[in-house]
Amino acid sequence: MGGDYAPKNTVAGAVLALREYPYITKLFLVGDTERVKAELATHRCKDPRIEIVHASQVVEMTDGAVESVRRKKDSSVSRAVDLVKSGEAEAIVSAGHTGAAVAATTIKLRTLPGVDRPGIASIIPTESNVFVLIDAGANIDARPMHLLQYAIMGSAYSKKVLKYENPAIGLMSIGDEDVKGSDFTKEVFKLLKESNLNFRGNVEGHDLFKNPVEVVLCDGFVGNVVLKTCEAIADAIFDWLKHELKKSPIRMVGAMIAKGAFKTIKKKTNYEEVGGSPLLGVNGICIIAHGASTPKAVKNAIRVAAEAIQQQVNPHIVEEIQKYHDAIASS
Amino acid sequence: MGGDYAPKNTVAGAVLALREYPYITKLFLVGDTERVKAELATHRCKDPRIEIVHASQVVEMTDGAVESVRRKKDSSVSRAVDLVKSGEAEAIVSAGHTGAAVAATTIKLRTLPGVDRPGIASIIPTESNVFVLIDAGANIDARPMHLLQYAIMGSAYSKKVLKYENPAIGLMSIGDEDVKGSDFTKEVFKLLKESNLNFRGNVEGHDLFKNPVEVVLCDGFVGNVVLKTCEAIADAIFDWLKHELKKSPIRMVGAMIAKGAFKTIKKKTNYEEVGGSPLLGVNGICIIAHGASTPKAVKNAIRVAAEAIQQQVNPHIVEEIQKYHDAIASS
Repeated sequence: MGGDYAPKNTVAGAVLALREYPYITKLFLVGDTERVKAELATHRCKDPRIEIVHASQVVEMTDGAVESVRRKKDSSVSRAVDLVKSGEAEAIVSAGHTGAAVAATTIKLRTLPGVDRPGIASIIPTESNVFVLIDAGANIDARPMHLLQYAIMGSAYSKKVLKYENPAIGLMSIGDEDVKGSDFTKEVFKLLKESNLNFRGNVEGHDLFKNPVEVVLCDGFVGNVVLKTCEAIADAIFDWLKHELKKSPIRMVGAMIAKGAFKTIKKKTNYEEVGGSPLLGVNGICIIAHGASTPKAVKNAIRVAAEAIQQQVNPHIVEEIQKYHDAIASS
Repeated sequence: MGGDYAPKNTVAGAVLALREYPYITKLFLVGDTERVKAELATHRCKDPRIEIVHASQVVEMTDGAVESVRRKKDSSVSRAVDLVKSGEAEAIVSAGHTGAAVAATTIKLRTLPGVDRPGIASIIPTESNVFVLIDAGANIDARPMHLLQYAIMGSAYSKKVLKYENPAIGLMSIGDEDVKGSDFTKEVFKLLKESNLNFRGNVEGHDLFKNPVEVVLCDGFVGNVVLKTCEAIADAIFDWLKHELKKSPIRMVGAMIAKGAFKTIKKKTNYEEVGGSPLLGVNGICIIAHGASTPKAVKNAIRVAAEAIQQQVNPHIVEEIQKYHDAIASS
């Protein structure tokens, strides 16, 4: 029921996913039974893998994150997390209130051993590949140790799911010299430098695309602002370009001839293709989808959930965090 | 002498500015006399408005900001600020170490009455206009009251220089609902809500271009990261598009036909056109240019300095800050 266009787009995305991914054995749709049924009817979908689980409440965007879990016990996000907790489901996908999804999973499933706070790992495209931006908005008042844990978790995800051999880690800062940064990033820098992680140092905007690392660290406030601003500027550039192209019939002809190029880039910069961002560090799998998710975005978020299940990311994170502590203890 | 391509580009930009802006009556070039002379010779420039002021030192990007002012008393940035302090110059333009320019102006010129910390006001283009992002990197460990002062200063600049009648102010946050944000932004929100300023509430990425306010507030760390990331993503999109267009001769033909549209957008998103960002809140005028400034960017930064002199921004800021305090005192 979460998201700007729910349950319409969430149900439509689930239907797409079931049609495209035969390996899905079960898909729970959690929310208002009547409304979910009505949406399914519009798609004439009677897939036997679907089970509707009723939830009478919805977390609103103006609700507080932790309060929403305590007060709305029958919200769709809480009920969905309950299914993971009981073992009936292996992952949850939510396009709703991010804070509520983070709070519900953290409170009900707990964090993995050695992880204090979960972080959202957003997958950002570069020309030739992708990198992980963590944290993209789960933990907005982070402490330096949380970012160290994000470094370990982001690397683990990058290795296991994105198949990078030895992912390099960069710390988002305001200058790529070692001495640059806020008091907060300087502390994180020190922790990373002392660790056995593949830390390349501070990175800033131009490094992200020209000389990319595989994992970019920042606190959840900075990450969320950066992510949304990137999306907005990419959209704005395409809108401006469209308006400029429409200014003359000649330009329109040129644009038609070259349209394959626009389509490729538009696809590359479109969040719908990425679908959703894993919330790393909780003892379970939770994929955070865009609030404005289209059916296609929801479908892809479900694919990201399936990948996380398949690749066994969580045991790998636990192992890597243990390794870090062992290295610190023996040094 | 500051900047990635100094003194080459800084001198070349100064020469361009003198040729284009006849209203400039005097232009000091502060730095290594011999190197500056050599650069001027390459442009065959013997403009009598130029005066070279020798400075034997250069602040390096790895130098600490405050230390650079204390230890390198004969650096080009320090000497340039001295010229403003003595009244010989009305403004300084620097493409060098931002922290050093901020520290030198703050220490030597002091802040305006009622201003605790200066902030960099970056001018960001939207489709139909521009907005002010403040602070873009002067004050990386900001307190809530600093952002309130940035709101007043950003509005004053927006009114006086950008000619907005009643600029709306937005607070960069992680959700546009009032309740969203970090502990820091929640405190700023409260201060703004209680003020008599034209505060529209929290804004996030998509608001910047789709439903823009005229002044966007954030701390210097967030502002700097956002600004550099925006630049990087705009560059990346154009690079990707160029590569895609080059993949086939047909697409190349289309791109040639439509090239006017690309040029317009490229110009809009190019920092060279903006040139430089005023450092608001110091008792003097200081324009921060991009570290990688081209001659054209330097020329435009000099234009921004001239506009700030002409529009008398500083007395207006002092007046607006006084008004705020009067309103608080009488409420």
